[in-house]
Amino acid sequence: MTTKSACGTLDLMPAELPSTMRTPLNTALPKPGSQSALREQNQRRVIAALMSGGPQTQAELSRQTGLSTATISNIVKVMATSGIVSTTPTTSSGRRALSVILNDKGQVAAGIDIGRRHLRVVLASPNYRILQEASVSLRPGHSAVEGLRAASDLLDALLANGGIDRRALLGAGIGIPGPIDRRTGTVVQGAILPEWVGINIRETFGERLQVPVFIDNDANLGALAQVTWGPHSAVENLLFIKVGSGIGSGLVLNGSLYYGNVGVTGELGHTTINEQGVICRCGNRGCLETVASTSTMIELLGRGSAETVDTQRIIEWALAGDTAALRVIDDAGAAIGRALAHVANLINPETIVIGGPLTSLGDILLEPVRRGLARHAVPLIGETTSVCMSSLGDRAEALGGAAVVLAHPGLTPALASSA
Amino acid sequence: MTTKSACGTLDLMPAELPSTMRTPLNTALPKPGSQSALREQNQRRVIAALMSGGPQTQAELSRQTGLSTATISNIVKVMATSGIVSTTPTTSSGRRALSVILNDKGQVAAGIDIGRRHLRVVLASPNYRILQEASVSLRPGHSAVEGLRAASDLLDALLANGGIDRRALLGAGIGIPGPIDRRTGTVVQGAILPEWVGINIRETFGERLQVPVFIDNDANLGALAQVTWGPHSAVENLLFIKVGSGIGSGLVLNGSLYYGNVGVTGELGHTTINEQGVICRCGNRGCLETVASTSTMIELLGRGSAETVDTQRIIEWALAGDTAALRVIDDAGAAIGRALAHVANLINPETIVIGGPLTSLGDILLEPVRRGLARHAVPLIGETTSVCMSSLGDRAEALGGAAVVLAHPGLTPALASSA
Repeated sequence: MTTKSACGTLDLMPAELPSTMRTPLNTALPKPGSQSALREQNQRRVIAALMSGGPQTQAELSRQTGLSTATISNIVKVMATSGIVSTTPTTSSGRRALSVILNDKGQVAAGIDIGRRHLRVVLASPNYRILQEASVSLRPGHSAVEGLRAASDLLDALLANGGIDRRALLGAGIGIPGPIDRRTGTVVQGAILPEWVGINIRETFGERLQVPVFIDNDANLGALAQVTWGPHSAVENLLFIKVGSGIGSGLVLNGSLYYGNVGVTGELGHTTINEQGVICRCGNRGCLETVASTSTMIELLGRGSAETVDTQRIIEWALAGDTAALRVIDDAGAAIGRALAHVANLINPETIVIGGPLTSLGDILLEPVRRGLARHAVPLIGETTSVCMSSLGDRAEALGGAAVVLAHPGLTPALASSA
Repeated sequence: MTTKSACGTLDLMPAELPSTMRTPLNTALPKPGSQSALREQNQRRVIAALMSGGPQTQAELSRQTGLSTATISNIVKVMATSGIVSTTPTTSSGRRALSVILNDKGQVAAGIDIGRRHLRVVLASPNYRILQEASVSLRPGHSAVEGLRAASDLLDALLANGGIDRRALLGAGIGIPGPIDRRTGTVVQGAILPEWVGINIRETFGERLQVPVFIDNDANLGALAQVTWGPHSAVENLLFIKVGSGIGSGLVLNGSLYYGNVGVTGELGHTTINEQGVICRCGNRGCLETVASTSTMIELLGRGSAETVDTQRIIEWALAGDTAALRVIDDAGAAIGRALAHVANLINPETIVIGGPLTSLGDILLEPVRRGLARHAVPLIGETTSVCMSSLGDRAEALGGAAVVLAHPGLTPALASSA
């Protein structure tokens, strides 16, 4: 069995960081589909090209991103004004040209991923380098206050560890494994963290940190990470599905994170798979989560097992060829594939990326997912939709949190003022 | 039982039309999410406001559309240059202002809806008035050539009837009840019109008419009609589901028609409802179409019926309270609601509009659909998604065809050249 299951890989390396200070201007994200969202998306492509290809001329950037030279010229001008890039004269094929290089002005964005049992914090520079990164365990059933205090403490520790002045912090993007009502900024019922329902995290955490705080569903951040840090920066329509104790997904449509009406999207975990199945925490029956989440796998494989079963143990068993573990994963994968087929039939994405704690299973999980997709999708859609594992592993959500901060127009006052 | 099932209504009246000539510049539709798509969407809102509210000042347009006065001023300038509107000085609250009025320069766009058994053609002016409209029956199993000849003949008859010079024709937008591969412009396998598979309608029909031809899935055109001619011009995220001999849907996301990767989207009819159900024409089992299409209803109610059953007969029976007809419609509605719940969980639209031949059933169909939606959707999504019948009846798809032509940048050379 091949393990070439990721669509691509990317190395992200920590680096040294001088400190300066800076405060963003405002906290509103650009409206999806708006001109500022388009500009932000184009800027993201240019940054991705500079990250992967190093300093290069505008003509090279145009070829690498598919954007017109006029668009590249405008974006580079705006990014240079706001200090994200510098330009230096060079020659290319004997003609004068500008070499574009990513700056590092010492500012830093925090990405925070809070799960049911884990907390991860990353610090990234405006040129999208990962400076610091750490994760710790959280007590299951922790309160929101507890979780936010732990996040704040870990953030402080990372700043101290990197010798980064606190005033260099631009903002924090926090991912929560639950639907967020964007009208109120609160976690809504149905979250995998019931203790967090109704809490306004943005306000609570913003008061503590004294910087702008962006709160989003963790799967949305995972999707954003795929098109920002991952190998999918050129993908227009992407679904990121996180398979863990819960199952959720985030959508990038026409190049931007998609939020719909009230912000609750991608609730794939509650697709009905068995009309007469077991009761789901959402109150419905036979939802995808009741047949394909890691909680369900643990429950199924825990029966009659003398050992304590957890996700890591299941992965070990499966990689070692344990028949029961393989069967449970196969059934889960086929059900996920069926739910994904209905999604693909509806929104026809280029790429579906699977994230969460099971990514190291590779083809053991991917194969039944692809089989379920092909079985239930309209043929042309099944044939043209690629499914792969996230190459960002369990870092995707936190990286997405940092990406949200860096995508914020407040970070680039010239962008905001030219809007 | 209340029959207030439409979200709103709109009167469209035919009108006189002088003739001039005009040719569009190019045939590429703007890329979704691009600046030109955004401009087109804003222009559509302004036109909708002028259609419903008559001539008004830019300040009034700003209030009615929610667009900034600066944006309105830019749009009006572009539309005036391209001749869509005229402006005349007026006063508003004692201050000088410009009154904006829709022009009618005698040009005409054709919208064509080709179904398995019907053909409808509408002619609309650039200020979105319906000038001519007619529908005829088609022989079931007609060939593509036959269908296109009938469409061309009916179009000629409508032009003659309205005294409209053929040279005034800007283009034709054609809706087909099947998935269209946008990479090739052909109908792909899985279409309800198997005779049309692989035909390049754009080329075939374009040669015949000698004007640009736009081909799209009929449900996509139905969705576009809802935000163009219908009462939903302010809706950002809308799903239009057409329930007929097949079931398909079209998506407006972030204000624009959504096409995904290869253009095959909204294939809701092939959501698996019964894993062990009957075989569907797509090759799968238990698809929504096998339990909720009018073909299935006809089959179910035809058994043991001495009469010939068709959709119209089923509607009459249901409206007269026939128990069997009501039960078949109730079961179909609940299944449609379940499929819609999964869609709503994923893309969280403001509004779902039901179109097709069953719209006159009103709450008889709407009630089980809403019930199925509420039962299977995440609670917050079920509560915030409105479901209603299309107020455009069976005209939606043809109207959408005309809207595609009118939304085309070639129609407004000033817009295209400023892109």
